[in-house]
Amino acid sequence: MNNNKVVLAFSGGLDTSFCAVYLSKIMNLEVHAVLVNTGGFSNDEILEIERHALSLGVASFHHINETEHYYNTVVKYLIFGNILKNNTYPLSVSAERIAQAAAIANYSKKQEINKIAHGSTGAGNDQVRFDLIMSILHPYSEIITPIRDLKLSRTEEINFLKENGIDMNYEKATYSINKGLWGTSVGGKETLTSNLPLPESAWPTPISKSGEEVVIVEFEKGEISSINNEKFAHPSLAIQHLKLISQPYGIGRDIHVGDTIIGIKGRVGFEAAAPLIIIKSHHLLEKHNLTKWQLYWKDQLSIWYGNSLHEGQFLDPTMRNIEKFLYDTQEFISGKVIVRLLPHRFVLEGIESQYDLMSPKFGSYGEMNNSWSGEDVKGFTKIFSNQLFMYHSIHTKDL
Amino acid sequence: MNNNKVVLAFSGGLDTSFCAVYLSKIMNLEVHAVLVNTGGFSNDEILEIERHALSLGVASFHHINETEHYYNTVVKYLIFGNILKNNTYPLSVSAERIAQAAAIANYSKKQEINKIAHGSTGAGNDQVRFDLIMSILHPYSEIITPIRDLKLSRTEEINFLKENGIDMNYEKATYSINKGLWGTSVGGKETLTSNLPLPESAWPTPISKSGEEVVIVEFEKGEISSINNEKFAHPSLAIQHLKLISQPYGIGRDIHVGDTIIGIKGRVGFEAAAPLIIIKSHHLLEKHNLTKWQLYWKDQLSIWYGNSLHEGQFLDPTMRNIEKFLYDTQEFISGKVIVRLLPHRFVLEGIESQYDLMSPKFGSYGEMNNSWSGEDVKGFTKIFSNQLFMYHSIHTKDL
Amino acid sequence: MNNNKVVLAFSGGLDTSFCAVYLSKIMNLEVHAVLVNTGGFSNDEILEIERHALSLGVASFHHINETEHYYNTVVKYLIFGNILKNNTYPLSVSAERIAQAAAIANYSKKQEINKIAHGSTGAGNDQVRFDLIMSILHPYSEIITPIRDLKLSRTEEINFLKENGIDMNYEKATYSINKGLWGTSVGGKETLTSNLPLPESAWPTPISKSGEEVVIVEFEKGEISSINNEKFAHPSLAIQHLKLISQPYGIGRDIHVGDTIIGIKGRVGFEAAAPLIIIKSHHLLEKHNLTKWQLYWKDQLSIWYGNSLHEGQFLDPTMRNIEKFLYDTQEFISGKVIVRLLPHRFVLEGIESQYDLMSPKFGSYGEMNNSWSGEDVKGFTKIFSNQLFMYHSIHTKDL
Amino acid sequence: MNNNKVVLAFSGGLDTSFCAVYLSKIMNLEVHAVLVNTGGFSNDEILEIERHALSLGVASFHHINETEHYYNTVVKYLIFGNILKNNTYPLSVSAERIAQAAAIANYSKKQEINKIAHGSTGAGNDQVRFDLIMSILHPYSEIITPIRDLKLSRTEEINFLKENGIDMNYEKATYSINKGLWGTSVGGKETLTSNLPLPESAWPTPISKSGEEVVIVEFEKGEISSINNEKFAHPSLAIQHLKLISQPYGIGRDIHVGDTIIGIKGRVGFEAAAPLIIIKSHHLLEKHNLTKWQLYWKDQLSIWYGNSLHEGQFLDPTMRNIEKFLYDTQEFISGKVIVRLLPHRFVLEGIESQYDLMSPKFGSYGEMNNSWSGEDVKGFTKIFSNQLFMYHSIHTKDL
Repeated sequence: MNNNKVVLAFSGGLDTSFCAVYLSKIMNLEVHAVLVNTGGFSNDEILEIERHALSLGVASFHHINETEHYYNTVVKYLIFGNILKNNTYPLSVSAERIAQAAAIANYSKKQEINKIAHGSTGAGNDQVRFDLIMSILHPYSEIITPIRDLKLSRTEEINFLKENGIDMNYEKATYSINKGLWGTSVGGKETLTSNLPLPESAWPTPISKSGEEVVIVEFEKGEISSINNEKFAHPSLAIQHLKLISQPYGIGRDIHVGDTIIGIKGRVGFEAAAPLIIIKSHHLLEKHNLTKWQLYWKDQLSIWYGNSLHEGQFLDPTMRNIEKFLYDTQEFISGKVIVRLLPHRFVLEGIESQYDLMSPKFGSYGEMNNSWSGEDVKGFTKIFSNQLFMYHSIHTKDL
Repeated sequence: MNNNKVVLAFSGGLDTSFCAVYLSKIMNLEVHAVLVNTGGFSNDEILEIERHALSLGVASFHHINETEHYYNTVVKYLIFGNILKNNTYPLSVSAERIAQAAAIANYSKKQEINKIAHGSTGAGNDQVRFDLIMSILHPYSEIITPIRDLKLSRTEEINFLKENGIDMNYEKATYSINKGLWGTSVGGKETLTSNLPLPESAWPTPISKSGEEVVIVEFEKGEISSINNEKFAHPSLAIQHLKLISQPYGIGRDIHVGDTIIGIKGRVGFEAAAPLIIIKSHHLLEKHNLTKWQLYWKDQLSIWYGNSLHEGQFLDPTMRNIEKFLYDTQEFISGKVIVRLLPHRFVLEGIESQYDLMSPKFGSYGEMNNSWSGEDVKGFTKIFSNQLFMYHSIHTKDL
Repeated sequence: MNNNKVVLAFSGGLDTSFCAVYLSKIMNLEVHAVLVNTGGFSNDEILEIERHALSLGVASFHHINETEHYYNTVVKYLIFGNILKNNTYPLSVSAERIAQAAAIANYSKKQEINKIAHGSTGAGNDQVRFDLIMSILHPYSEIITPIRDLKLSRTEEINFLKENGIDMNYEKATYSINKGLWGTSVGGKETLTSNLPLPESAWPTPISKSGEEVVIVEFEKGEISSINNEKFAHPSLAIQHLKLISQPYGIGRDIHVGDTIIGIKGRVGFEAAAPLIIIKSHHLLEKHNLTKWQLYWKDQLSIWYGNSLHEGQFLDPTMRNIEKFLYDTQEFISGKVIVRLLPHRFVLEGIESQYDLMSPKFGSYGEMNNSWSGEDVKGFTKIFSNQLFMYHSIHTKDL
Repeated sequence: MNNNKVVLAFSGGLDTSFCAVYLSKIMNLEVHAVLVNTGGFSNDEILEIERHALSLGVASFHHINETEHYYNTVVKYLIFGNILKNNTYPLSVSAERIAQAAAIANYSKKQEINKIAHGSTGAGNDQVRFDLIMSILHPYSEIITPIRDLKLSRTEEINFLKENGIDMNYEKATYSINKGLWGTSVGGKETLTSNLPLPESAWPTPISKSGEEVVIVEFEKGEISSINNEKFAHPSLAIQHLKLISQPYGIGRDIHVGDTIIGIKGRVGFEAAAPLIIIKSHHLLEKHNLTKWQLYWKDQLSIWYGNSLHEGQFLDPTMRNIEKFLYDTQEFISGKVIVRLLPHRFVLEGIESQYDLMSPKFGSYGEMNNSWSGEDVKGFTKIFSNQLFMYHSIHTKDL
């Protein structure tokens, strides 16, 4: 192991820029900045981040494109499970932190570098996720967290960078933005309150579409196989394509408040048109194609899976066990979902699937019973109520 | 018991009109029509239904206003539990059928009438709910279901009524509408398919509001205590008031597909502006005021509670046990929720509550930790990851 | 299809003997008796049952040995899930009825016989299990159940058989015994009460061993791989071998009371030494080798799996999904369990496994912490209590 | 607050004896030793502990009898929930630590002493339970843990005490014993291994009874109301009485292995005749008197409740919510359970209860159906299998 080298999980923002300079200038370490892209950065943005990293004096810059791997190991199961934390948040950031921490840990281990730095503060979820995943995947490495250890405010970080001659756009960061394949988060002064919504200007994607359009989202065994009958080389490309179509309507904007790993409540804005359209479409298809108890147990397990992912417990083998369950439920989740996009909302118009259990062949809800008789239902109800009938016979004097 | 009398659960629609005539003319019974109002009928509508009932030749017409009792025993817990079946449907009809069946059974028992008739078909949920609840609350009564027993189509019912000289509006029933305190359901030819949405004309409440407005929904121990600071004599009145404000925006329109008690899939349209606004507002307040595990267990139990209610299992004592749990969670669910209404949607802008657990006093998410240190979190993460660390040490050669 | 033939699920007992004669003599059907062995019959017993069947005048007798298939598709998962219904009953009969119903249905379909008969009464679980599984696996076949349809008592059955000149041992049936791979059930006049235990004479296996002995039960990926270091060609043989060793101690005798599918409570005695030793041994190994949350979720899903199996819901695809979960948890359930057998009881003395998570390498419970410090635990506890600390700060004036 | 005083949670064992001397001699604090009795100490033992405390030089000794309060707030719910951790351990120590921590914190607060000391090591559960409960109930108090902080071995503690002239029985502690109302735990060199059982000599209560006897355990609304028809002033007295009767048989001895709060696996022996007899008797009564779904949900919630209690999460309001649920299920858990005690085991022979749902009035399992017909069951099964029938019609070519 090389004791003077440190791998810095780098995003180009204020916190990690501070770390880059602090680690090299103050701690005298050889800083290797690594950017893990989980689908939120364009090639131009990556080049820009590289330029900025080098301007901070890092020894090297490395870019890891984790988008497909991230989809295959995490996002896929969020779709299978229709996972929205507290029925609201697609876990945009929670999920990608797992992928980033693992990529950084594996890279450091391969490079035989046993110091890892990240820019987390002491009041968020990311510190736990990064520390936890990294310490398991690269055991006995040293994890360095300057912002947390020094308890720095943003102003102090800016002053330090200015004192060290760093020239970057210190203004743009009114809102803290995090972009990835599975949505974009937005934090700012409003999200530190309980009662204020985000202003229009805070949302990263301005609303540029009015009118409406229909999109056909097709699934094959639970995974997106086409958008408007167009196939993609990988489902992550379909997600990005759907984002291009739908985000300009302002769909999927919301604020989530939830429990952090460290016990405080946290509030975060997000825009996630594609994740919400996909999850709701996928869920509708499942409501047609799965049995009652499959739907029930998927809910129970998925709520858990989402919470554990949120809390950085991705490496618990229970997560693998649940993934096997979820995967197995997707065998017949194939078909098309018809979605109408409109400003700020979308409407699920219906589905088409060869595995649809709602088939007039057997009977039509409320209308006609083809394969059973009224007497069958009377018998059913008689037996179905047996225990309650006995219970109330025993317990009630005057019903 | 009086063997020639029958209590008919009467709504004034085609099915129960048929029953009224069939029971008296063909079965030679003395028909006592009973309308159970669960908050969906105005006084004018009730008078109109009474007039219609009498024109069908019933021996008596009786109106039972169950609205408050229905709220107190059922709707209240649907709010406490934030219950949307399959994350979609507020159980508008499922819930009120329970109240109606119980009211009819109790009325019949009190009147010492041991025949009860209802207009259910053989392909829906209501037949099971009615049979089950009635047979428990009025044991050994005889339940008569002409439509189910005769397997009649709507056309056959109309022909029978016409032949018997009944004059009613046979046209209006393109869509089958059911109105109650907790929403209005809509069934029609589209809901018999999997892929068609309802046309604009099918929705009972036309969209008459544009623009936007803010509504303050206040809760006290989980129950609505005011709307825009206006107090109401009973929460059911607040719900009806909120409906007046919000339904004209077209909020809360959707189509649900789900599992019927008899095993087939059923699809139903609904408009439920007030239920959706209330549930989502209440849930937001809970996300601020409850602990992580309260939120978790409320979800688990509420999904179950909703499913069982849907399936007519209201009299299972497990439901009472769950209600005790839910009630106990509401102790500190007091505060105001700021809701913006717009055409077809609403936005939860934030909450104000003295019991908000998101308080900057302890720390601000992602920003500042006031009551713990970075070292505390490092220790936490170390211990928190202990088992996974051991697990992966044992199981993995090369991580 | 051949309309005069009927396949009779045959066990040789009073009920199915009655059916054999009734179906041929009264209903004029060509009766094909099929015995499905799930591990409870010896070759001699099968020959005896065949002789008896032929004496009843059946057209043919067929024996299907389902033991291995039954283990592979059902028993294996009962072990993976450590399933004891209501913490008591290994589902001895519930499980094998599934295997028997499926075998009979598949046989009938293959033979192109579309009538199936079984000897169930109208007051038990088996009627539902048989009807349900058979009607799905051999759709549109006709199911004939003379005992249920005629509501016969045992005396009436005996009289009918005597009248038809059938000579069999009508005496032995003081207790109704059902033997299979996964235990033997015992029903009799005591099990129809709530307060009486079974007399010693009712238990099928007399106690012939005193003293004590140690047995080593070895598992490999959750399945029994050896008993006292002896390997077996199939796990079902290991189960049968363990039964020979342990049942003479009177181990695993108990009475279960539980909910039947039809809503009444039922009570049944059973002796199941091997199932109980295996389940408890397997569970102990899991307690050492699985993580906390794997144990938690296995419990939740297994309780469900057991209940559904009991209720004949084996063909619900949710069961397959759960099996995938359970199977995946067994990857590291390999090792030896040391079990001491004594009259009426057994003691689990300990386990040996390379995957044991209880390793002094990391720390010894209550003694020494090698891989963390007291400060780490203080930090952990601080953060772990954060939310409760806030909660109680807000809600309590004087704690 | 008085800064020189410290309250020491005192048990009289080696660890807390060390603390008493260390806190006074080395840390120069005024030590107030407080013994919290949770039902495990006799008056003589308490006097002996007081004498010992004073010999160590403490400023005061105080005894708090928490037995009844401990039963009322904790043990009662462990019975309601039939709680055995991992189906094995009645949480004997886990439960009483909660009561002790709360009593010590409340006492310190009342005495206006803001230093609390306890004798926990750094490798067990108790450190977390004590720190967590105390810091919430007596916020901002300072918690002092000498053994954990100094990472002392037992030998080092003994040497320190000897050097300070303390004369106590240093030999007796081959096994660490903890006695309380809800069982006695035993730790020793065997429990640090995975494969060794405890020797006969390690068990605190020698086996002094042979033969057998029947005990009638009576419950009223889930609480023990009499033993052999003898009433008690408080259920905790009934538990202690049952222990006197049953523990001499060697009933309820076992070893549990489970997950500690800090992530390692821990193994602990225990003898708990009374808790096991009570839990199993109570459960049997519930199996007769509760509905299927009450039993199901009690299991789900109780597993959780036990785990959380074990992890010191007693102050989470979710626990209060679950207690409300459990309490509500006990309304009809009244009746007698007949239990036969024998060496090393007990047999539940049956129950008698006016609320028994197993009543021949409705039908007898497997025998006779009085209140429904075979046709009813056929109809039931038809409808009950509807969804699976459709599912398999769609998905399977050749069944």
